[in-house]
Amino acid sequence: MSSEFGKYLQVTIFGQSHGKAVGVVLDGLPAGEPIDLAELRRFMQRRRPGGALSTPRREEDEPVFLSGLLGDQTCGSPLCAVIENQDARSEDYAELAALPRPSHADYAAYCKWGGKADLRGGGHFSGRLTAPICLAGGIAKQLLARRGVFVGAHLAEAGGEPDRSLPLFPTRGLLEEIADKPFPALDDRCGERMQAVIAAAAAEGDSVGGIVACAAIGLPAGLGSPMFGGLENRLAAALFGIPAVKGVEFGAGFASARQRGSDNNDPFLVDDRGEIVAAKNDSGGILGGISIGMPLVLRAAFKPTPSIGKPQQTVNLFTKKATEITIRGRHDPCVALRAVPAVEAVTALVLLDMILEEKYDGNIGNQE
Amino acid sequence: MSSEFGKYLQVTIFGQSHGKAVGVVLDGLPAGEPIDLAELRRFMQRRRPGGALSTPRREEDEPVFLSGLLGDQTCGSPLCAVIENQDARSEDYAELAALPRPSHADYAAYCKWGGKADLRGGGHFSGRLTAPICLAGGIAKQLLARRGVFVGAHLAEAGGEPDRSLPLFPTRGLLEEIADKPFPALDDRCGERMQAVIAAAAAEGDSVGGIVACAAIGLPAGLGSPMFGGLENRLAAALFGIPAVKGVEFGAGFASARQRGSDNNDPFLVDDRGEIVAAKNDSGGILGGISIGMPLVLRAAFKPTPSIGKPQQTVNLFTKKATEITIRGRHDPCVALRAVPAVEAVTALVLLDMILEEKYDGNIGNQE
Amino acid sequence: MSSEFGKYLQVTIFGQSHGKAVGVVLDGLPAGEPIDLAELRRFMQRRRPGGALSTPRREEDEPVFLSGLLGDQTCGSPLCAVIENQDARSEDYAELAALPRPSHADYAAYCKWGGKADLRGGGHFSGRLTAPICLAGGIAKQLLARRGVFVGAHLAEAGGEPDRSLPLFPTRGLLEEIADKPFPALDDRCGERMQAVIAAAAAEGDSVGGIVACAAIGLPAGLGSPMFGGLENRLAAALFGIPAVKGVEFGAGFASARQRGSDNNDPFLVDDRGEIVAAKNDSGGILGGISIGMPLVLRAAFKPTPSIGKPQQTVNLFTKKATEITIRGRHDPCVALRAVPAVEAVTALVLLDMILEEKYDGNIGNQE
Amino acid sequence: MSSEFGKYLQVTIFGQSHGKAVGVVLDGLPAGEPIDLAELRRFMQRRRPGGALSTPRREEDEPVFLSGLLGDQTCGSPLCAVIENQDARSEDYAELAALPRPSHADYAAYCKWGGKADLRGGGHFSGRLTAPICLAGGIAKQLLARRGVFVGAHLAEAGGEPDRSLPLFPTRGLLEEIADKPFPALDDRCGERMQAVIAAAAAEGDSVGGIVACAAIGLPAGLGSPMFGGLENRLAAALFGIPAVKGVEFGAGFASARQRGSDNNDPFLVDDRGEIVAAKNDSGGILGGISIGMPLVLRAAFKPTPSIGKPQQTVNLFTKKATEITIRGRHDPCVALRAVPAVEAVTALVLLDMILEEKYDGNIGNQE
Repeated sequence: MSSEFGKYLQVTIFGQSHGKAVGVVLDGLPAGEPIDLAELRRFMQRRRPGGALSTPRREEDEPVFLSGLLGDQTCGSPLCAVIENQDARSEDYAELAALPRPSHADYAAYCKWGGKADLRGGGHFSGRLTAPICLAGGIAKQLLARRGVFVGAHLAEAGGEPDRSLPLFPTRGLLEEIADKPFPALDDRCGERMQAVIAAAAAEGDSVGGIVACAAIGLPAGLGSPMFGGLENRLAAALFGIPAVKGVEFGAGFASARQRGSDNNDPFLVDDRGEIVAAKNDSGGILGGISIGMPLVLRAAFKPTPSIGKPQQTVNLFTKKATEITIRGRHDPCVALRAVPAVEAVTALVLLDMILEEKYDGNIGNQE
Repeated sequence: MSSEFGKYLQVTIFGQSHGKAVGVVLDGLPAGEPIDLAELRRFMQRRRPGGALSTPRREEDEPVFLSGLLGDQTCGSPLCAVIENQDARSEDYAELAALPRPSHADYAAYCKWGGKADLRGGGHFSGRLTAPICLAGGIAKQLLARRGVFVGAHLAEAGGEPDRSLPLFPTRGLLEEIADKPFPALDDRCGERMQAVIAAAAAEGDSVGGIVACAAIGLPAGLGSPMFGGLENRLAAALFGIPAVKGVEFGAGFASARQRGSDNNDPFLVDDRGEIVAAKNDSGGILGGISIGMPLVLRAAFKPTPSIGKPQQTVNLFTKKATEITIRGRHDPCVALRAVPAVEAVTALVLLDMILEEKYDGNIGNQE
Repeated sequence: MSSEFGKYLQVTIFGQSHGKAVGVVLDGLPAGEPIDLAELRRFMQRRRPGGALSTPRREEDEPVFLSGLLGDQTCGSPLCAVIENQDARSEDYAELAALPRPSHADYAAYCKWGGKADLRGGGHFSGRLTAPICLAGGIAKQLLARRGVFVGAHLAEAGGEPDRSLPLFPTRGLLEEIADKPFPALDDRCGERMQAVIAAAAAEGDSVGGIVACAAIGLPAGLGSPMFGGLENRLAAALFGIPAVKGVEFGAGFASARQRGSDNNDPFLVDDRGEIVAAKNDSGGILGGISIGMPLVLRAAFKPTPSIGKPQQTVNLFTKKATEITIRGRHDPCVALRAVPAVEAVTALVLLDMILEEKYDGNIGNQE
Repeated sequence: MSSEFGKYLQVTIFGQSHGKAVGVVLDGLPAGEPIDLAELRRFMQRRRPGGALSTPRREEDEPVFLSGLLGDQTCGSPLCAVIENQDARSEDYAELAALPRPSHADYAAYCKWGGKADLRGGGHFSGRLTAPICLAGGIAKQLLARRGVFVGAHLAEAGGEPDRSLPLFPTRGLLEEIADKPFPALDDRCGERMQAVIAAAAAEGDSVGGIVACAAIGLPAGLGSPMFGGLENRLAAALFGIPAVKGVEFGAGFASARQRGSDNNDPFLVDDRGEIVAAKNDSGGILGGISIGMPLVLRAAFKPTPSIGKPQQTVNLFTKKATEITIRGRHDPCVALRAVPAVEAVTALVLLDMILEEKYDGNIGNQE
C-alpha cells in the first residue's frame, strides 16, 4: 500500500501521468457537507499549468464526481472524483525507456518493477498526481473553513531567493490574499526576484529548488498525540508524498538546531483576550506532537525539477554503458511553485483527518 | 493511537518517566532470530546518562524480557521487554504543575488532558522514552546486520558547530567506529569543538540544539513505494516521534531547495563492480520514495533542551497570571547528543519493517 | 473509514446504487500481472442480474480501467476500475424516504446520517456494490490461480434446502465446473430443489435466506498468524462486508460446538505423497488462525432479501406513526444466490492480500 | 502483526503460556478514567481456573500496572498491565515436541515457524492469553458502564445442551446476575444439564464444544459503518482471536439463512417511550453494519477443547511415521465455559473502540 494516508479520513490517490485518468477516493467525510464546485475549481486552478514559468501542457482538470455526493452535498459514503488526462504526449518519453533520467524516479521504478512500470510522463510519480491531491485538499479546505480552520501557503524561497516570512499571527484575510495572487509570494517585490531567478534558470534549460511555507490558523489546542501519532508525524508522512519534497520542518525547524534553549524557548504570555500564547511560536504551534492553539507553521523543501534541458550523464540500463541524455518533454522550471497548493492540500487533509478524529466542529456555520 | 508505528513489524512504546517502568512490544519479528544481549546492552548504553554533558540521573536500564523469546531466540510471538524506572525523583517537579515550562510538552499535555496527564518528569513525552526505543532499535539493528544492512549515526552539528560529513560510501567499519567513541563525532577535533559549545551552554544553565545525521548501508534497491508509503514518509513519521525533533531531511534536503537542477541532479555512473551508482547521492539514496541501492542518508534537527536553568516567563494555568519559572531537576544540555542512538534505533526499526515486508533476507548468516 | 480492507493489498470500494458509477481501487498488486479481460467478464457475469430468480434490473457491468494497467498488465501503481450505473430508476424509491423498510439498512443510515444519506436503491449498502467487489475479486482470482491457488464456492443451502457438501479435497476442476453452471449447486438435483424453493417464495412476493460455502485449494501451509491477524479474523472481517451476511464459520463451525473433542478432533495422517494431512478437515484448514496445507473451507449465512413484496409494518420517521409499507422496486428473492461469486471474490482478495504479504508465489507460470 | 486490534483504542496482547508473563498494552484510553481494581479482579476471576469443570492449573492472575495510570486513573498515555505466569509446568509438554496434537495449533505453529516457536503449553496460542484479554476487557467494561453501555454473556449451549435465550431486551440487572453466578447460565436448570454434559465428557477424558451468546445494551444508534468497517466486521475480526472460536453470528445468524423474508424481517414499532424499535431484533441490533439502538446480540461457536485424555492418531513430524499420542497436562473439558468473560471482554473492547471513535460519552457519571 503506497498511495493512501489518513486514519479517520482515508485518502486514496490513483492514476498515472499518461493513463486514462487520475483521481482520488475520500472515505470518512461527514455527510451533509456542501461542496462549492466553483471554489474547488478556483483552488485546483492554482496548480494548473499556465504562465511563462510552467509547463506548456494544458489540462482542463475538470473533476467528475463518481460517488459520494447527493446533489452537491456529501452523503457519508466514499467520494470518488476523477480528472481525465487529455493532453498526454507519450512520444516525448518513448526513447527514454532504457535511459534513466538523473534524479528522477524512473530509476527507482526500474529498481522496483523492472520494465513493468508505467514510466510514461513519470507514471504514478508524476507531478500530475498533485491534481487529485489538490482536488481532495480543496474539499478538505472547505470543510475546515466551515469549522473555523484556515490553511494557506506561500513560496517562501525559490532558487535561494527568499520571500518575507509570515507574521506571527497570519489572518484568514492574508492567507486568502496570497491565494489570489498570480505568484504566491507574501511580498510582491520578493516575488519578482523569485520569478526572475526561475526565469533565468528556465532560459538556460535549467531549474531551481524552493521552499513552501504553510500555516494553519483556528486549530483547536490539544490536537494530536505524543510519540508517533502527533501532528508532526502525520503531516510529515503525508507531505513527503508530494513529488520532490526532500525535507520537512516545523516552526524554527533546522534553525532551532543552531540555537540555544534561552533563544529558542518560547515564553508563555497572556494575550489581550486572556488566552495563553507562546511569544514567538518557534515550535510552529506544536509541542510534544500536540497543537497548543497557536498557528501551525511548517515548511517543505523541494529539490529542483530533475527534468532539465541540459545534457546529463546517465547509464543505459541494458547495455550498462555510460551515455548522455537530453530531456525534451515539457517541464516546470520550479516544482515548488506549482506545489504551493499541493502543500496546502496535504496539510488540510491531514488536519481534517485529525479534526474529524477528535469530532471537533469549531463553530460550524458561524464562520461564513 | 499514538505510541505505535510499523506496518509489518509493529512497535508499541509505553511508559512514563516517573512510572513503574518503560517498555516496548515488538510484533512481527521473524522466529529464530538470536538476540545478543551483551551487544544490545552496549547499544543501549550509548543513550544512558553519564558524563559531564548528560543529566546526572542514573538508571541501570537493564531490559527484562517478558515474552517473545525461547531461550535467547525470538519465537514468532510478540516480544515485550521492559526497563524499570529506578531513580525517579518526582519531588523536583511537584511545584511545577500549575506552571507550564516554556517550549515543553507540559502545556500541550494540559491542552489535551487537563490535569489528568502524568506530567512527572515529562511523563510519556520524556526523553526517558528513548530507552525502550533504543531497546527495540538495538534488536532491529541485529536483525538488519544479519541481512547485511548497517545503520549508524553521528552528531552532525551541535550549537552550530559542525562535524565533518559522512563520506559518499560510509563503510560498516566507519559506522561501528563512531558507535564506539565516547563522543559520537566523525572527526574528533570537531567533536571537541561541539563538546566545548555544549559545556559552555551548560555552564550558563543553558542548552543547545543539534543535528543527528544517520546513514544506512546495504539496503536493497527497490525498497519503498511511491507517494505515501515511501521510505521518506515512513522514516519521517517515526523520527518525529523522538522528543525534540523539529525537522527531517533526506540527502541534500533543505540545501537542495537552494540549488539548480544542474547542480542537484545526480548523474548515473557505472562503478568498478559494474553496478549503477548515483555520482553524489544528493537524493540520500531515495528517489520517488524508493531506495536505489545507494546509502540512505537522513538528518534530524533537534531543538535545544527546553529545560534550562535560567529564569523564564510563563503563565499560571489557573490564575492566568504571568510569572517567572526556574527549572531545577536534571537535564541534558543537548538532547541531540543522547539522541544519536535513538535516531539509529528508529531508522533501524523502520527499515526492518520495510525489509520484512519485502521478505528481503540479504545474505543471512554470510555476514557474521 | 468503512469501505476498505486489506493490509498489503488494499481494496477500496466506492459508489452508490443510483449514483454515477460504482468502482474499486486496488493498491498493492504486483507489477507485470496480465489481466485476462474475457475471463474477468465471465466471472463478473456470474453475479449479473438475469434469469427468473434475479432482479430484472439490467446492467452491462463493463469495467473501465482508469489506472494501474500498462497495456493489459498491472504496472505497480494503484488500479482503479469503474462500472457505470446505467439502469437506475430512482422513482421506485422516492416515496419511501420517510418509511424505513424493515430489516433494511435504510434505518441504520438514517440513524447515522439523518436525511443526508443517499438511500436511493440502498445507496452504498446496495447489493449493487458486489459488482466492484467481484471486479476486484475476479482480478485476485487470476493472480491466485497463477500461484496455484484456486477459490470456488457453491450455494450450500437456500431456504433450508441443502446442496451436497464439497468433498474433503475439492479439485480445481470441480470448482470450475460449479462456476460454469447456470445454478451454482454441486448436485444438480439439490440445485433444482433450491430453485423450486426460491421460485415458490418469489411467487408469493417473499424471499429466502441461504448459505454460501467457499473453498480455497493450493494454499501454502503457515499462512496467517495467531490471535487477531489470522485467516479467520481477516476473512470474517471482510466477508461481513457483503450485504446480508449474518454469520461466518470455518470448517465444522457451529456444528463443532455440538461435538465432543474425540469426534471433532482431526487425526493427523500421512497421505500417499508423504504429506501430513488432517483426516476430516473439521478445522476448515485453519488451526490457530494459520493454514495447515489443507483446503480452506468457510460458510457465510445470508439472511433473506429484506425487500419483499408483501405488506409490512413500519414507522414514519417524522410523524413516528405506525404505517404499512409495500415495497415495489426490483429485488432478488435470494441474495445468497447472487452472492456466490461475491463470497469467492472477498475470499480471493483476502487470501491474495495474505499471500502477497508472505511473498508466496507458488509456481508462477507452471500452472497454466 | 498478529496480536493487535482496534483503530482508535489499540489493544496489543503479548505473552506465551509458559513464558515469564502475559500482558496487554491499551493505547487510546481517555485520560481521567478511574479503574476500580476490585471490580476488575472480580471480572478476571470469572475466567480463572477453579471448580471441577476447569483445569487444575492455579494462577493468581494479579495484574501489575506498568504504565498508563496516575494514581488509580488513566493518564492518557498507553496502559501496560502484566500478569506473571507462576505455575507453568513445562515438563508436561516436553515429550510432545515432535508429535502435533490433533486439532491443536501446535501443527500450525510448526508450519509457520518450524521448531522455533514456543509451543510449551500452547505458547502464544494458549487459552492463557485470555487472561490479558479479560484484563483489558474488564477495563473496557468499566468505561462502557460509565457511558451507559453494558455487556454481558452466558453459555448458550454446551455439548448440545442449550440454555434459555436472552430476552428481547436484557437488562443491566440480568447481565450482572449471570455474571455473579458460579455457572454462567441464564436458567439454572439448563446450567445443571450443561454441567452434567461437561462432567460426563470430562469423566471419559473427553471434551465438549459450546456456544457463548453475548449482548450489549445502551449502545447509541448509528455506531459503525457500511461495508468493511461495520460492527459485525470489527467484532468478528476480534472474536476469532479468542482461541477455539470457529463461528460468529449476529442476531438470528445462521438460522436466518433458513427463514423467509416475511419471517426474518423485523417490523418497526414505536415503543412506550416513543422510540422506534425492531419487533424481534433478528438483526441482532445491527443493519448494514450499523447499530440501530436495539440490543446488540452475537454468538460465538467454540470447538471442543482439542486436548483430550483419550489416545489419538498423529504423525511424528521428523520421521513422518504415524503414531498414537495421549495428552496428559491439565485442560478444561469445555473451553467455551471459561471463554464467557473473554467474549464479553473482546466485545467490550471493540465497542469501546468504536464509541471512542465516535466520541460518544453517553451520560458519563449519571449511570452510577
